[in-house]
Amino acid sequence: MTQLSNRLKSLDPYKPGEQPKDRQYIKLNANENPYPPCPETVKEVTDFLKEHPRAASLYADPDSTVLRGEIAAMLCRTGGVLCKAEGDTPAADKANITPDMVYCGNGSDEVLSLSFYAFFDDAIVSPQHSYSFYPVYCGYYGVKQEKAMLLDDWTLDIERMAETATRLDAPTILANPNAPTGVALTRDEVKWMLDNSPHGRVFMVDEAYMDFGKESALPLLESYENLAIVRTFSKSMCAAGMRIGYLVANKPLIDAITTVKNSMNHFPVDALAQVFGASSCRHSAYYAECARSVVQEREAFAAFLNEHGWNAPPSGANFVFACKEGVSGLEAYKKIKKAGILVRRFDTPGIEDYLRITIGTHEEMSSLQYVMEDI
Amino acid sequence: MTQLSNRLKSLDPYKPGEQPKDRQYIKLNANENPYPPCPETVKEVTDFLKEHPRAASLYADPDSTVLRGEIAAMLCRTGGVLCKAEGDTPAADKANITPDMVYCGNGSDEVLSLSFYAFFDDAIVSPQHSYSFYPVYCGYYGVKQEKAMLLDDWTLDIERMAETATRLDAPTILANPNAPTGVALTRDEVKWMLDNSPHGRVFMVDEAYMDFGKESALPLLESYENLAIVRTFSKSMCAAGMRIGYLVANKPLIDAITTVKNSMNHFPVDALAQVFGASSCRHSAYYAECARSVVQEREAFAAFLNEHGWNAPPSGANFVFACKEGVSGLEAYKKIKKAGILVRRFDTPGIEDYLRITIGTHEEMSSLQYVMEDI
Repeated sequence: MTQLSNRLKSLDPYKPGEQPKDRQYIKLNANENPYPPCPETVKEVTDFLKEHPRAASLYADPDSTVLRGEIAAMLCRTGGVLCKAEGDTPAADKANITPDMVYCGNGSDEVLSLSFYAFFDDAIVSPQHSYSFYPVYCGYYGVKQEKAMLLDDWTLDIERMAETATRLDAPTILANPNAPTGVALTRDEVKWMLDNSPHGRVFMVDEAYMDFGKESALPLLESYENLAIVRTFSKSMCAAGMRIGYLVANKPLIDAITTVKNSMNHFPVDALAQVFGASSCRHSAYYAECARSVVQEREAFAAFLNEHGWNAPPSGANFVFACKEGVSGLEAYKKIKKAGILVRRFDTPGIEDYLRITIGTHEEMSSLQYVMEDI
Repeated sequence: MTQLSNRLKSLDPYKPGEQPKDRQYIKLNANENPYPPCPETVKEVTDFLKEHPRAASLYADPDSTVLRGEIAAMLCRTGGVLCKAEGDTPAADKANITPDMVYCGNGSDEVLSLSFYAFFDDAIVSPQHSYSFYPVYCGYYGVKQEKAMLLDDWTLDIERMAETATRLDAPTILANPNAPTGVALTRDEVKWMLDNSPHGRVFMVDEAYMDFGKESALPLLESYENLAIVRTFSKSMCAAGMRIGYLVANKPLIDAITTVKNSMNHFPVDALAQVFGASSCRHSAYYAECARSVVQEREAFAAFLNEHGWNAPPSGANFVFACKEGVSGLEAYKKIKKAGILVRRFDTPGIEDYLRITIGTHEEMSSLQYVMEDI
């Protein structure tokens, strides 16, 4: 028997949403975007490869310079919330992001992993229920995870969480909107937490779903040098398959994660993904339209759930988190799967009767409602 | 000041070949392939994206199933050495590789990094001069690197290296052909090392350049369950920009690196890169032709160097490692750069007067020879 590293023993890898191949399912289990990428981007990427095939033979720009510039420009325009119409964005929501405040990686999972390596040592504070990759990274890097309980309505107990971080002098990581609950914090709440958590420790906000929400923490970067915001192209930008994630922070934190990247994989974002991402940013108006459709469907679905006796906290994301009294989560999941629709369910104690349902197209949501009416 | 992790302090990141933007250079400094990818692959990838744009919106296959199948089929056909003509491949060179013996990652750098995490603990043995990312990963994961000296002709002292590994009961990693020297081991030499190194420890061979060489270790996988072979699409497959690397090993090692991957980034190879890689494997005859051109240019360049008083060990890779008595490596590098050609030079003591020169097209090599005649 070949001996493997001792580190392996402590790993409990992430289990993603199932991808069964036995039949065609409506996929509402991985929080993917139901729309295709912008047609202009498809054209620009294919034209690029045809006109510059040697770009595939050469190493890509290790610094994703063009992509970072386009991301910064997009964030300045949108304030980090795509679903708002341009006129809806008040001055307080505007963000002043420069390209040197952006780091790009191979999906926000890689960005998160390198951030854990760069920013976290002994312990971190994070919500009791949140993105299930956080405990995986804790295992990977040997960081202790101190969990802050959620309140009965699935909101974060921000006072208790800040207290814990202060007592341990520990960094914080939270998702806003949170997953799998969809519950969002206001910018004032995030600011309150920043003011009441250790100033010398990184405070990380995972905004994977913020483009479907209300208030990004991006404008706070001006005042908080310990704030680090992770974002992704996988949800609102219709690009889960392209693996583009990024960190937005002030220069000392960007320098740190860049050092870690250069110690791990010098060229994480491939040449075509860089072109794809940069083009997508230029066409953010298309993705804003997609995000608005998703939000509209989400609100209609929330009303349906309410009418049919399901409980679901208000969502600021592209999914809802729902349960019905007297209905087993596993049974509901199975019935829906039998009808050809995949939703997500967790075995985690305390949320085992909840379903996390991704918002799809109008047609997909109609099919789902038809099934759920009988549950 | 925001506190960062203690781990950061021990990092000394890899410094890749320079990518200056002040003028157009002939790039012979990063061991890239001078040829574009196969035109059929460009067509297949662009057709795929146009016909299946939603593939970009959805998470890609986390297991790169199709790509792994095509890699395995290619390795069975070629025995892991592309530059050989089909008829030149004797039975002993044939490899019997199944898809479950292949793991795919975001470039061989990522594959190497995850392998270090999965396979190496306290210490490893590796050659004195080799791929300069190995010491970086040692720093990243806190592994001690025991360096085995090279002999005067830049060959590996395989007896001493195996002795050291046995004394320390440590895993081994080496590159074959080695970088930056280009010197290759025969399969019998690799086999001798496997027989004389600790059987219970991983023995890793980095075959990034093997497609330009003579004898891959792939046929040895049948007999050695501790053997792990890392390979890449960046050199012979004209795809440095696409970030595809892979590990070939028996199932227990593949299972281990897959567990590590699932604890780090569940979807490392993006949807387009998977299609690109799979298509490239199907068109391996094209890349074999490219590899043969590179080998032909390499041999012609070696003859030129010999005629002009340069010393260069015989290379089995797509680069040569050369110096000239009485000529400073830095001065030679500068003269060549002034003429618009980038080659690679290292500050490392012992090799500071050597240049590592990537083999380009016939025209590029003619330009270089014109400059080098005056050095």
